[in-house]
Amino acid sequence: MKTILLAVGGNSLIRAGEKGTIAEQMANAQRTAAEIAKLIRDGYRIVLTHGNGPQVGAALLRSERGASQVPGHPLDVCDASTQGEIGYLLQQSLDTELRRAGLPVPVVTVLTQVVVAQDDPAMQRPTKPIGPFYSHAEAEERRSRFGWEIVEDAARGWRRVVPSPEPVEILELDVIRYLLDRGVLVIACGGGGIPVVWNNGRLQGVEAVIDKDRASALLASRLDVDLFLISTDTDYVYLNYKKPTQEPILLASPTALREYADAGHFPPGNMGPKVESVLRFVTREKREAIITSAENLCRAVAGFTGTRVVLEESPIALDVCEQMELPVESG
Amino acid sequence: MKTILLAVGGNSLIRAGEKGTIAEQMANAQRTAAEIAKLIRDGYRIVLTHGNGPQVGAALLRSERGASQVPGHPLDVCDASTQGEIGYLLQQSLDTELRRAGLPVPVVTVLTQVVVAQDDPAMQRPTKPIGPFYSHAEAEERRSRFGWEIVEDAARGWRRVVPSPEPVEILELDVIRYLLDRGVLVIACGGGGIPVVWNNGRLQGVEAVIDKDRASALLASRLDVDLFLISTDTDYVYLNYKKPTQEPILLASPTALREYADAGHFPPGNMGPKVESVLRFVTREKREAIITSAENLCRAVAGFTGTRVVLEESPIALDVCEQMELPVESG
Repeated sequence: MKTILLAVGGNSLIRAGEKGTIAEQMANAQRTAAEIAKLIRDGYRIVLTHGNGPQVGAALLRSERGASQVPGHPLDVCDASTQGEIGYLLQQSLDTELRRAGLPVPVVTVLTQVVVAQDDPAMQRPTKPIGPFYSHAEAEERRSRFGWEIVEDAARGWRRVVPSPEPVEILELDVIRYLLDRGVLVIACGGGGIPVVWNNGRLQGVEAVIDKDRASALLASRLDVDLFLISTDTDYVYLNYKKPTQEPILLASPTALREYADAGHFPPGNMGPKVESVLRFVTREKREAIITSAENLCRAVAGFTGTRVVLEESPIALDVCEQMELPVESG
Repeated sequence: MKTILLAVGGNSLIRAGEKGTIAEQMANAQRTAAEIAKLIRDGYRIVLTHGNGPQVGAALLRSERGASQVPGHPLDVCDASTQGEIGYLLQQSLDTELRRAGLPVPVVTVLTQVVVAQDDPAMQRPTKPIGPFYSHAEAEERRSRFGWEIVEDAARGWRRVVPSPEPVEILELDVIRYLLDRGVLVIACGGGGIPVVWNNGRLQGVEAVIDKDRASALLASRLDVDLFLISTDTDYVYLNYKKPTQEPILLASPTALREYADAGHFPPGNMGPKVESVLRFVTREKREAIITSAENLCRAVAGFTGTRVVLEESPIALDVCEQMELPVESG
């Protein structure tokens, strides 16, 4: 049986034009769950990871707004609470969809801590914008009160930035592996995991954000999955995205994808980290990866859509051609 | 190897006089984790459950305060986020303490949904106060806007009340059992679990609170644990609590404890549900239970303190006497 690590974006629970109400997020979770149920029906085992960008932003804002009456939450605790909140929406949707499909697969959300290195150079260089936008005065007040690093964000105001260190170790890896081996659908590494460091033999949360695609690539490697599948806003990775010369990438080797990346085709805040994570996984593990949209997960796994990244020497390019004729055999 | 289900109160992370900052809660979590590490060193397997009273109250307040800018969270989602938040504090503390003690026991927080019955009579009779206190005008506004049931709470103002239905089924039970069998320390059923119902084949969260001691007793039964251990504010359950005639109960049969309960010795909002849950577990499973304070967990398990509840015909009373001489042998 083949295993897929599926990484869904925090944005995939909140679509363009939506406010992010729980009703909206639940409806989107249900759509993703229906696709996942189809993959399981086709014989795949699934590990699910997810982002938390908009959700952790909202959590930080709520924490600030409530701070006159109840103690605020630091970023690591907000990460933990969003793992609970988003895990719940996904898990409940999956429980429903799997039961409807008659698939007796247990689902579990595993709270995940990811160790980062205190001497990671990224720790000294905060780059990841997080939380609400502030006026200049509000931002300055927070800079002096909390020691936050603040940057101006286009025309939208000022915003806190935190470090985005490399994920080094997934603390709950053994547990995730046990569960996967028992046929459980595991939801893990939410928001890239809660970033922690070992400090004098004591585990400690840090105010940082681990890129969820990097954490997902690490988990995919450690679990030795067959396919790393990233769900995003678009059906394909594009060359010259949103230009008249825009062109979807159907199949690429890591070498070709690296060249496109170096030529600046993938913006750093969006497709860049996904492409980077896919390159790491495919190169390191000699396995394949796909980037596509939430609605096309099954079609992409069957070879009908999405950007597929495979090694030059891999026989998969041929498989893909065959699959264009015939739905892929699973199991 | 014997298994203990340990239920800690949401209040045990926030002690009398504390505000509930994360630093305070983490320090308290570390104290509990140190006691748990001792139990594991002594050869016990542990399943840990916890309350979320103050934490979910704070989450509801933050949700209200942020609602002008980000969508609010219903009670089930707040339960899910507090399972993440509290699970994180406990899990991280346990990871540290177990590593320090050289005990290679993995720890995991399992997001837990607990099914309740839609036709549970309690669903029609909201009794559990939850969230912030309001002025009369604020309370009336919410009553008409959200359809909330509101009650006046002593001199402190008005407050929302929600139903407190019986826990019927723990959805993640199989997963919890796998992990326990693999030697994992599982944190589950936080806040009594997220209350859900099956509605036309679809799982749905409900605005209710499941008593965490009842949910813990159900989990203890389903997992067939050897000991149900409840951690609370006091070393013992007392007769005539806080009266001049106050007297600790050292050892009681279910029959005797039921008589004390019927005589009104245990207040409904506090010791009542704990005693009730212990009675259910001991009577149903013919095993033993202990109620004691967080600092005394190990001493209580070894027979040196705490209120121990055992069946009349059980040989445990003799064991307890032996243990008074010699620390309990584990394994």
